[in-house]
Amino acid sequence: MQGTAILLTQGLLHTPSAKTAHGLIRGSERFQVKAVIDSVSAGKDAGEVLDGKYRGIPVFGSIASFLQSGMGSAHFSILGVAHAGGAIAPEWMHSIRESIVAGMSVVSGMHQFLSENPEMVSLAAAYQVELIDVRKPKSRDELHFWSGEIHSVTCGKIAVLGTDCAVGKRTTARFLVQACRADGLKSEMIYTGQTGWMQGGKYGFVFDTTVNDFVSGEIEHAIVSCFREENPDVVFIEGQAALRNPSGPCGSEFLVSGMSDGVILVHPPGRIFYKGWEKTGRKIFPLANEIDLIKMYGVETLGIALNTQNLSLSDAKDWQKRFEDELSLPVVLPVEEGVEGLIPAVKQKLSELKR
Amino acid sequence: MQGTAILLTQGLLHTPSAKTAHGLIRGSERFQVKAVIDSVSAGKDAGEVLDGKYRGIPVFGSIASFLQSGMGSAHFSILGVAHAGGAIAPEWMHSIRESIVAGMSVVSGMHQFLSENPEMVSLAAAYQVELIDVRKPKSRDELHFWSGEIHSVTCGKIAVLGTDCAVGKRTTARFLVQACRADGLKSEMIYTGQTGWMQGGKYGFVFDTTVNDFVSGEIEHAIVSCFREENPDVVFIEGQAALRNPSGPCGSEFLVSGMSDGVILVHPPGRIFYKGWEKTGRKIFPLANEIDLIKMYGVETLGIALNTQNLSLSDAKDWQKRFEDELSLPVVLPVEEGVEGLIPAVKQKLSELKR
Repeated sequence: MQGTAILLTQGLLHTPSAKTAHGLIRGSERFQVKAVIDSVSAGKDAGEVLDGKYRGIPVFGSIASFLQSGMGSAHFSILGVAHAGGAIAPEWMHSIRESIVAGMSVVSGMHQFLSENPEMVSLAAAYQVELIDVRKPKSRDELHFWSGEIHSVTCGKIAVLGTDCAVGKRTTARFLVQACRADGLKSEMIYTGQTGWMQGGKYGFVFDTTVNDFVSGEIEHAIVSCFREENPDVVFIEGQAALRNPSGPCGSEFLVSGMSDGVILVHPPGRIFYKGWEKTGRKIFPLANEIDLIKMYGVETLGIALNTQNLSLSDAKDWQKRFEDELSLPVVLPVEEGVEGLIPAVKQKLSELKR
Repeated sequence: MQGTAILLTQGLLHTPSAKTAHGLIRGSERFQVKAVIDSVSAGKDAGEVLDGKYRGIPVFGSIASFLQSGMGSAHFSILGVAHAGGAIAPEWMHSIRESIVAGMSVVSGMHQFLSENPEMVSLAAAYQVELIDVRKPKSRDELHFWSGEIHSVTCGKIAVLGTDCAVGKRTTARFLVQACRADGLKSEMIYTGQTGWMQGGKYGFVFDTTVNDFVSGEIEHAIVSCFREENPDVVFIEGQAALRNPSGPCGSEFLVSGMSDGVILVHPPGRIFYKGWEKTGRKIFPLANEIDLIKMYGVETLGIALNTQNLSLSDAKDWQKRFEDELSLPVVLPVEEGVEGLIPAVKQKLSELKR
């Protein structure tokens, strides 16, 4: 599945909630993004809204104005907001109908499946387009149990974990793959979320939509397949949530079942509480404490990537310096400065593994 | 769903693999167990095979010999072996057919669903019996996301975790509920496995068959429902697997999303490697190290229950003494001596919570 696409972000493009869209604006080998539909950011360039970098992706206020712009239509209309779950809101249903009528197949990561909505199914049939539910679980005969085969993998396996959700784990992992390649290392990414698939990921699975019994086996299968088929020097495994995220702790699967050799940890110093759970008073744990927890799983943290939400660049740089001193680890600002500063630590780990 | 039942254990009754059957022999409010079908242990009493205690449950070598014994038939035939997954073996299919033809509904915890097997479905229809797949996932509209409502629960919440699979977490939790009740505390169990449901559990869910995104919400929903409807002093949450079990690490969900106030930790000193993964060389972590890891999740371990597999009673008592001295915690042998020795620590925690 490949083609041109528009992204629907329902006025949320400028917020972290549109993280699916943000990933696709940053880059995708599966979908070529032509435009974003967002009433709040209409008239701007989507890249500039995202991180100030122009990317030639215009934002339109409506699907109608996109279709009238002379850019032509697109193959796919992608719901670009990560939802915590629940029903599909009426305004979304409206945009989905409009997309179908305009002849675009709809890609959805919603928990409620479009392909189980009778109205959408008949509308899609009438306009001969597809409804693609990225969260739809695989059938049981496509799933794998953990087998221990991971013990046969000899390339480096580095998990990109975070101290919270929506901090840029996927983006950091993607940047690391690119930076390693630029440095002559054969590197691959193991995606674990729907956006990773949308970006064209070949090895991976959608973690949160997998029946629990198969999660560890799917991680192992993705890494083993990638290792056998691509023979990389190193794979970067996209983490999910955080080890102590109250609404769904996650991470030990990558460390234990995926046998990670090292961790790059993404942390948002400008956030106090776990995202979305401010009302419960659940604070994000201190960075050093998270590193200690990862160590209890037998894995060393190799470096830190900072998410700069709620911080000025100068404050972010202060945090960077502070953590470098405190932890004696390389600390980078991926979006602002890239991740090249982490590559020596990655290479050091790879050379240790070869010994 | 309630009634009389036979348990099929296919020659494995005397091994830890028959843990589903073992749980039901120990006790169930849902099924009244009349007999066990097991060629290896035929002629013995199932309770004596299990732990040397006579329970008046005869073991027959075949379904035919049970039916000819004069005990009458049963409502249900239950597959009593916990499988790591995969296809249903031919010898099982044979026993399932025999059960159906004898007019018994079949209860299965297999990963392959009987209700999706056309031959079994038509055979069950012909004999007017039911096929009950305990592992069949709930539909999405029956599932819950984590909401933070757990913060409103004021009773004690104690997780019964283990340092490995199949060490007696469920049995220990059941014993703790009974011992607390005997001591005048209103206590309830939150089941998280199929056997817990088979034993008649009212509050809980089948962890490993739940789509990952809903695991934390289902834990919360079970505890919150139990708290609201029963107003207990304390709930005991059945753990699953182990925090660092390679084939499926598990436990942080109970600690973080279920907001456990304390842990009772079950440990098998007679085992060196994680069960089933001896070939990978993955060793079970030392007990003190597991307690440290649990502490990193903010939860205190209140006491230890020892699984005595591979140990003489005298060796088990040596370990008990050694751990008591090393950890300054109460240590019990649940099957041999009961769990009463843990109740003072539970009550101490409950009184701290009330302050």
